[in-house]
Amino acid sequence: MMQTPLLLSSFVKRAERYFPDKLIISRTGENMIHRIPYREYAKRTRKLADALTKLGMQHGTKVGTFAWNHHRHLEAYFGVPGTGAILHMINIRLSPEHIAYVINHAEDEILLVDDNLFPHLEKLAPFLKTVKHYVIMGDSKEIPETSLKNVHSYESLLDAASDDYVFPEDLDENTPAGMCYTSATTGNPKGVVYTHRGLVLHSFALGLADAMGLSERDVAMSVVPMFHANAWGIPFAGVFFGLTQVLPGPGFNPVLLLDLIEQEKVTLTAGVPTIWLAALKEQEQNPRDLSSLRAVVCGGSASPKGLIRAFEEKYGIPFVVGYGMTETSPLVSLSVLTSKMEDVSMDERVEIRALQGLPMPGLEVRVVNEQGEVPWDGKTMGELNVKGPWIAHEYYNDDRTAEAFQDGWLYTGDIAVMTEDGYIKLMDRTKDLIKSGGEWISSVDLENALMTHEAVFEAAVIAVPHAKWMERPLACVVLKEGQVGDEQMKQQLQAYLEGQFAKWWIPDDIVFIDEVPKTSVGKFLKAALRDQLNEHYQGV
Amino acid sequence: MMQTPLLLSSFVKRAERYFPDKLIISRTGENMIHRIPYREYAKRTRKLADALTKLGMQHGTKVGTFAWNHHRHLEAYFGVPGTGAILHMINIRLSPEHIAYVINHAEDEILLVDDNLFPHLEKLAPFLKTVKHYVIMGDSKEIPETSLKNVHSYESLLDAASDDYVFPEDLDENTPAGMCYTSATTGNPKGVVYTHRGLVLHSFALGLADAMGLSERDVAMSVVPMFHANAWGIPFAGVFFGLTQVLPGPGFNPVLLLDLIEQEKVTLTAGVPTIWLAALKEQEQNPRDLSSLRAVVCGGSASPKGLIRAFEEKYGIPFVVGYGMTETSPLVSLSVLTSKMEDVSMDERVEIRALQGLPMPGLEVRVVNEQGEVPWDGKTMGELNVKGPWIAHEYYNDDRTAEAFQDGWLYTGDIAVMTEDGYIKLMDRTKDLIKSGGEWISSVDLENALMTHEAVFEAAVIAVPHAKWMERPLACVVLKEGQVGDEQMKQQLQAYLEGQFAKWWIPDDIVFIDEVPKTSVGKFLKAALRDQLNEHYQGV
Repeated sequence: MMQTPLLLSSFVKRAERYFPDKLIISRTGENMIHRIPYREYAKRTRKLADALTKLGMQHGTKVGTFAWNHHRHLEAYFGVPGTGAILHMINIRLSPEHIAYVINHAEDEILLVDDNLFPHLEKLAPFLKTVKHYVIMGDSKEIPETSLKNVHSYESLLDAASDDYVFPEDLDENTPAGMCYTSATTGNPKGVVYTHRGLVLHSFALGLADAMGLSERDVAMSVVPMFHANAWGIPFAGVFFGLTQVLPGPGFNPVLLLDLIEQEKVTLTAGVPTIWLAALKEQEQNPRDLSSLRAVVCGGSASPKGLIRAFEEKYGIPFVVGYGMTETSPLVSLSVLTSKMEDVSMDERVEIRALQGLPMPGLEVRVVNEQGEVPWDGKTMGELNVKGPWIAHEYYNDDRTAEAFQDGWLYTGDIAVMTEDGYIKLMDRTKDLIKSGGEWISSVDLENALMTHEAVFEAAVIAVPHAKWMERPLACVVLKEGQVGDEQMKQQLQAYLEGQFAKWWIPDDIVFIDEVPKTSVGKFLKAALRDQLNEHYQGV
Repeated sequence: MMQTPLLLSSFVKRAERYFPDKLIISRTGENMIHRIPYREYAKRTRKLADALTKLGMQHGTKVGTFAWNHHRHLEAYFGVPGTGAILHMINIRLSPEHIAYVINHAEDEILLVDDNLFPHLEKLAPFLKTVKHYVIMGDSKEIPETSLKNVHSYESLLDAASDDYVFPEDLDENTPAGMCYTSATTGNPKGVVYTHRGLVLHSFALGLADAMGLSERDVAMSVVPMFHANAWGIPFAGVFFGLTQVLPGPGFNPVLLLDLIEQEKVTLTAGVPTIWLAALKEQEQNPRDLSSLRAVVCGGSASPKGLIRAFEEKYGIPFVVGYGMTETSPLVSLSVLTSKMEDVSMDERVEIRALQGLPMPGLEVRVVNEQGEVPWDGKTMGELNVKGPWIAHEYYNDDRTAEAFQDGWLYTGDIAVMTEDGYIKLMDRTKDLIKSGGEWISSVDLENALMTHEAVFEAAVIAVPHAKWMERPLACVVLKEGQVGDEQMKQQLQAYLEGQFAKWWIPDDIVFIDEVPKTSVGKFLKAALRDQLNEHYQGV
């Protein structure tokens, strides 16, 4: 067979050739919507490659983006790696210290920055050791007032560039194409390097009928920020298959998202549960026509079953939970329904959809504990391991690699069980798991149960050192407005859990707090609670 | 990213793990249907690997199959390449000389032969230079009476083998996995070697929503013989995605095929136009419930529009024409309808479906003439070129490689035009194209037109040397029963064509023949007609 390398630039070529009139619908601000056909998009992408090359970008140069979801960011998604350089998608929600860390650690030489995010980054400039050029992405060609040198306008650079640029076809498919850093709960973020091969195979997987089934007929709106885990791969696959893509830009909200779904007849959208909870609330108040939607994909944290049921039952829209992480490109599994599940009841359907799902074709997944791979019984817990061509094999220049990558597997740090059908069900993070008297207790299960109680707004359950049992669960509960966190409430919540779990799972105590501390991506930051409450069971 | 090789054995692993109860429905003879769950299939496949290893199969050993479509053949599809050996699917319809040639040329050491095909092969045994073992595939363990030594029963070998066999996971993905020979119209067949990488990527492509969309929910029946171009890749992708597979075995006919579609609720079937013409005739006479079908895939030669229309209009079943060849694994393109074609009329729909279609994601396709790539105008003809990771880069040990493989492209030998949407429309084989006074005339267009005339059963149009025009078209026509091939008929047919083509396209003469000579796969063997009628225009 021909040794044709799997390269991202082939996606642009295909979209331009076969779908020149299909649109990228890009919102860059209030009332500012661009409708850019792939014909134009491909030209602009080549111009970007030419422009950045003129600025000094070479094979292997790291180019950072600090941007929302819009067409310029999508141009960078291909214009940078297509040349052999590396696109570093910087998470704008990291702390300033971490932002400086990741830019320095990646050794970014050029930064492409949204005009409205530039002030944020400008302050960090004195700490950035490798950055030579700032390119301002905005509709205007004016450069904001700044003391920095080497600040350019994206649009002016494109004006001066040539669309005759030709992406090299002889790159090795294992050439690095992109980088993301995980938002670690402790220590500095860890970098993951994506290759052309990995991203191309991941894109193929997203197009499979048994996965997301992304197709030219789709109008996809990824609400996942493009600075997060390749925005779940949708921007890449979207260009590959010539999808209409809706990019919602900065400062979006539920009203805007629902309006875009209705106006642009979005068929598939993807985002975290928080987004869909808010969208659902808005939809209940001001119903839109959502009938174009064939799937809502949801991941990042556990999806409440009420949310899933609302979409599935009330609106008839498949609500598909996915699992992945920065280290996995990111798609590992999806809660798809196989042929044997076609006729299940709505209750069963919601249960299946709430799982992290079936591994994608092309990957291997297992759950292991000290005895090896766990049985598929829906209850034996172990750590989830993943292997495959779009799974990282290391952290970039980081000595934490050895913890997570062993025997050819990624140890995800997630505790899971396998259902009888081999569907992944996440139970906990290894660090959050409670080991009480040699038995494992899932903090996530307890949290989810607590959060179904009518008085509870949020709940985090943590492991606290205990003299007799080594560790015991402690529940940290945020009550809804008007509820009182007294002894009676504590007993009521414990009794509520007793109906659902073995006695030894029930938290020995419950503390009422004002809010659960969260990471930059909205996940519970339990480490902070553990630090604070570490001695809570001392002397018990 | 992890350097996980793309290997066929991972497909078996996946099917066994996630779809152990899904069935391979295998017909091995009259009233003999096996229903084999993947759990069992995977075990038998590993046993086959173990059994053949014990017979001496090693990395790189060529193992031939001489067999119809059934579960044992499907076991060989994975059990042989999974080990690092090479599966040679021998076309049972080749001439005896060519069968001996391909076995000797490939250097097959083991042959897996259907019991009912063994007598055919046994006669050739004295000419086979490398074969050490014959393994008889049949439901019985009895070995047919034979003077040959080293004849084994497939089932007995499996009985004595272990399913503990483990497929190596460290094979290079570029390891050869399979071989097919093309049935050349002149000279010996030419061998094509498939790699694991190529077949895995081809399988991914078959699962794309924008291609065949093969899915776990499908019940696929490939009527393409498994000795032809990987049976269009469906057996491989079928295991990958855990499809229910229906394998119709030897001596099938339209009645049986329609019965199987109805009984097994087949959702997708694939085969050559001849099959679907016969099936349609049977269906018109004895209607079955075909409502389970979501697609009929058709290729190998041009599909009559009446056939396409019957499926699309009368039965509401998408009739998808595909293009490919042994050299291309084989899928290159499919006549899928893109979003802009959703609302076309039935007439336009049939026109689109009759095209060879849109290239698959992952491949590059172009049509070139002396001026370079032709415009997409639906009329400028050129030779179709293909490039990509599941396209061959050579013929196996054959000095005809240089003709077909140039500048990194496969020159298919097919003359095509591109529609405005970039769909491939085949016009002719390069060898059959008529070059009259510097202009090209498509013999296929003339043939198709002639075959729509009510008096004509079959027609082949060939180029015949001509003193003035270099070449001129000559039509060779087989009339329907009861029709008379006289001067009047000749004039009638010429007049019929004059209504449809430029004057200089009209064949100067028409000869009436008893039948069109055909290749072993049913394609017109025009070379034979050319030889016979080469001097027809001499002295004109």
